[in-house]
Amino acid sequence: MFATPSPDPMLAPPMEFPDFPHTNILDADQFSRKDLEVILEQTGKMEQLEQARRAFGLLEGRILASLFFESSTRTRLSFETAMNRLGGRVISTVGFQFSSISKGETLYDTMKMIEAYADIAVIRHPVEGSSRIASAAVQMPVINAGDGSGQHPTQALLDLYTMFKERGGVDGLRVAFVGDLKFGRTIHSLIKLLQHYDVEMVLISPVDLALPESYRKELRKKNKVFEETEDTKALWDCDVAYVTRIQEERFVDRSEFERLKNSYSINRAFVMASRKSTLIMHPLPRVQELSTDVDDLPNAAYFRMAHYGVLVRMALLTLCLRVPLPPLTPTL
Amino acid sequence: MFATPSPDPMLAPPMEFPDFPHTNILDADQFSRKDLEVILEQTGKMEQLEQARRAFGLLEGRILASLFFESSTRTRLSFETAMNRLGGRVISTVGFQFSSISKGETLYDTMKMIEAYADIAVIRHPVEGSSRIASAAVQMPVINAGDGSGQHPTQALLDLYTMFKERGGVDGLRVAFVGDLKFGRTIHSLIKLLQHYDVEMVLISPVDLALPESYRKELRKKNKVFEETEDTKALWDCDVAYVTRIQEERFVDRSEFERLKNSYSINRAFVMASRKSTLIMHPLPRVQELSTDVDDLPNAAYFRMAHYGVLVRMALLTLCLRVPLPPLTPTL
Amino acid sequence: MFATPSPDPMLAPPMEFPDFPHTNILDADQFSRKDLEVILEQTGKMEQLEQARRAFGLLEGRILASLFFESSTRTRLSFETAMNRLGGRVISTVGFQFSSISKGETLYDTMKMIEAYADIAVIRHPVEGSSRIASAAVQMPVINAGDGSGQHPTQALLDLYTMFKERGGVDGLRVAFVGDLKFGRTIHSLIKLLQHYDVEMVLISPVDLALPESYRKELRKKNKVFEETEDTKALWDCDVAYVTRIQEERFVDRSEFERLKNSYSINRAFVMASRKSTLIMHPLPRVQELSTDVDDLPNAAYFRMAHYGVLVRMALLTLCLRVPLPPLTPTL
Repeated sequence: MFATPSPDPMLAPPMEFPDFPHTNILDADQFSRKDLEVILEQTGKMEQLEQARRAFGLLEGRILASLFFESSTRTRLSFETAMNRLGGRVISTVGFQFSSISKGETLYDTMKMIEAYADIAVIRHPVEGSSRIASAAVQMPVINAGDGSGQHPTQALLDLYTMFKERGGVDGLRVAFVGDLKFGRTIHSLIKLLQHYDVEMVLISPVDLALPESYRKELRKKNKVFEETEDTKALWDCDVAYVTRIQEERFVDRSEFERLKNSYSINRAFVMASRKSTLIMHPLPRVQELSTDVDDLPNAAYFRMAHYGVLVRMALLTLCLRVPLPPLTPTL
Repeated sequence: MFATPSPDPMLAPPMEFPDFPHTNILDADQFSRKDLEVILEQTGKMEQLEQARRAFGLLEGRILASLFFESSTRTRLSFETAMNRLGGRVISTVGFQFSSISKGETLYDTMKMIEAYADIAVIRHPVEGSSRIASAAVQMPVINAGDGSGQHPTQALLDLYTMFKERGGVDGLRVAFVGDLKFGRTIHSLIKLLQHYDVEMVLISPVDLALPESYRKELRKKNKVFEETEDTKALWDCDVAYVTRIQEERFVDRSEFERLKNSYSINRAFVMASRKSTLIMHPLPRVQELSTDVDDLPNAAYFRMAHYGVLVRMALLTLCLRVPLPPLTPTL
Repeated sequence: MFATPSPDPMLAPPMEFPDFPHTNILDADQFSRKDLEVILEQTGKMEQLEQARRAFGLLEGRILASLFFESSTRTRLSFETAMNRLGGRVISTVGFQFSSISKGETLYDTMKMIEAYADIAVIRHPVEGSSRIASAAVQMPVINAGDGSGQHPTQALLDLYTMFKERGGVDGLRVAFVGDLKFGRTIHSLIKLLQHYDVEMVLISPVDLALPESYRKELRKKNKVFEETEDTKALWDCDVAYVTRIQEERFVDRSEFERLKNSYSINRAFVMASRKSTLIMHPLPRVQELSTDVDDLPNAAYFRMAHYGVLVRMALLTLCLRVPLPPLTPTL
């Protein structure tokens, strides 16, 4: 009676780990074009592994500390889902119930403690720059899930992946930004990432909600093509339209809000009039600026973006933890 | 060199999946007698698999979204336990901290997002009908864990399983309902389920807390036998007595509450006077209507019901996700 | 071609379970010297298993109920990390959102319900003695994570392990307690444990914050050597200095607080003047009594204590659940 040897692990193809120099994900400025390509490729692999049900187990035994000093259920659940899909575990806290912080403990000391518990941390904090302070305290990787009016880099990366995935690439795209370009944090981060690509940008907003001059100056400095208009019809010859909520709470003059709100209602008929079957993106939540009758158009990408967000975060968790992926067998 | 074939999966006994037409569990009205039998049988199998430590792993890699817009720790922990016992993972949120909902997001949009994260959702919501709206938004299964004054079907199913398990079947039982039959949501749902069985019901309550006429009309229409009385002694010739809390906050006249409260204190001596060793059920929490000296009587079922609740929810999770169970080897 | 058969599991050395008589961890008084040795040894094994990545899976399929009726994020995350590192699952609740408790449910009934969900419970409660009440209600193990001004035994055990680990043993140590010895709950519990060892204690505090007479009386009764002084320099000839926060909120006279606060600022220069390279411990959070410039001294143990806290809780979870550990191969 013979025992069959199990396959020699030394002969198995080596696990792959890409050239990625970052341990922390803190802001959109930290990435080179090469880094972005690595992240997009890793995210694509995550999608394949997920479909093949092979992602589960990659982070078995690892723990993610999900530290939401400020509530953001959408982002928190996306990260926690990503960790669970990889087989890892999550310890989670929401709000400043940290009694130790109320007793005067610094974020530095809090992070030193968390480092004894977790292998990687995601932090959301109301104060700009907090994630950098948190990251400086510890050896473990830290991912910024939004700090004050500062950065929200994983949102920008999922936006980028959405264009890459749904338009087959980012170079050559003509991208419209529609709505509140003044206060929209997600737009600011995404514009930073797009500067690494050969894209044309069309900035569509009321004058009062125009992109801040500092961003326009940066675009000019890098010789990026962009147009500005108040006419939403300008999105009809764009490949992508990134629509954002006009934030009612920002307006002093309520009648001004009512006027703008109506000028920006993107509905089904309007989208179907597009010459290029424009991909409609939205970071959500939406209110009246994007009609629900758009939802079942094939180019309505915004609900699929929630799925891409999980995949991007899975990719980042594995990259920051330097966990190689199993080689993917090409589909025949 | 010979390879030993691994056991041919085609020759292994097939995994079993019962005939169950529902993807969602929304209300007690949705079930046929056949459906109820499938659920009871699946719950019984869960009990056997749990005892054999074979349930863990059945939902490995699956994620439950536990969405408690209204706090209900008892029900939330029961569902989260059920998912964990099956090896699945849980993402969880309590309350309307959903910043997106406070920004005006609809339940529809929230559910579209959650669908990108989870494989199945449990929802508790203060507004009646919410679980149906939530379910209509998504392809994934949705289970109603209580919505407003509406349904709480999984509570009714665990009540039914308790009778089935502890009395060896449901047909032929004489069942007393004791206490607040007017406002008790759990009683209303359970009465709906019992209409599929050949049971006699004894409704024991003060006149002011009688079962609403709409339910009595339905019972008459279906030719169901029921009696009404104010005398708790009527439970002495019942197989089951389902006792509920008299809700102090419902009374305008406090002296009326005090009078009723005393008339409904079920204690050990009273239970032991029963001619049929009546099974004492209670949905919990209890206050003064059920004395703690009943607790260690063998026919006090209420603490065991918490365990049955987990088993019923394990059964529903596997049924809604259409996950077959491994065949159970009969105990020799 | 021959394959080596995998080792016969029947011939493998038996799993080890030590002689440990406790199912519950309720207070520091419950332990004998022998019990403490078992806990320290089990914690040491946990450290080795963790390093070898062999701890994960020991509690697979088990569920910990993490019941924090009072918020204590540090302790909660430590226990939840411990359970996750062992491969177990956690169901968690924070605060008195237990609607059933607000409806008048007793802790007894709540625990009876939780017992149907979990295999072991950790309880934090604002009322002294709650963990004992909770434990009396159920068969499953209960661990006290702090109840009111009462006990916090797992903190004292991690303090003890810190001395054992970082000083190679506890007998023979000269241990200084510095700061608020009157109200410091952690110090009171630790002093109880140290009575089982041959240690000298140096109590350093302002007169107004001296160790309560009941504790001193107990020390005298057991013939334990201790000195009392207001001079922090007394720690310079100690092996260990356990520093605590002076709690601003306890002082009626604010100028008194300011005076004491300054007298107790332990900084780098002060620590380096020690003759015995005194190990600096602190239960955290710290405020001004311990300067951050101490942090990177090798004898600053306080951040490592967070790690030891996880290991001690892993040890207690396995001991209370009577789960044997795999034998450890001695490192060559």
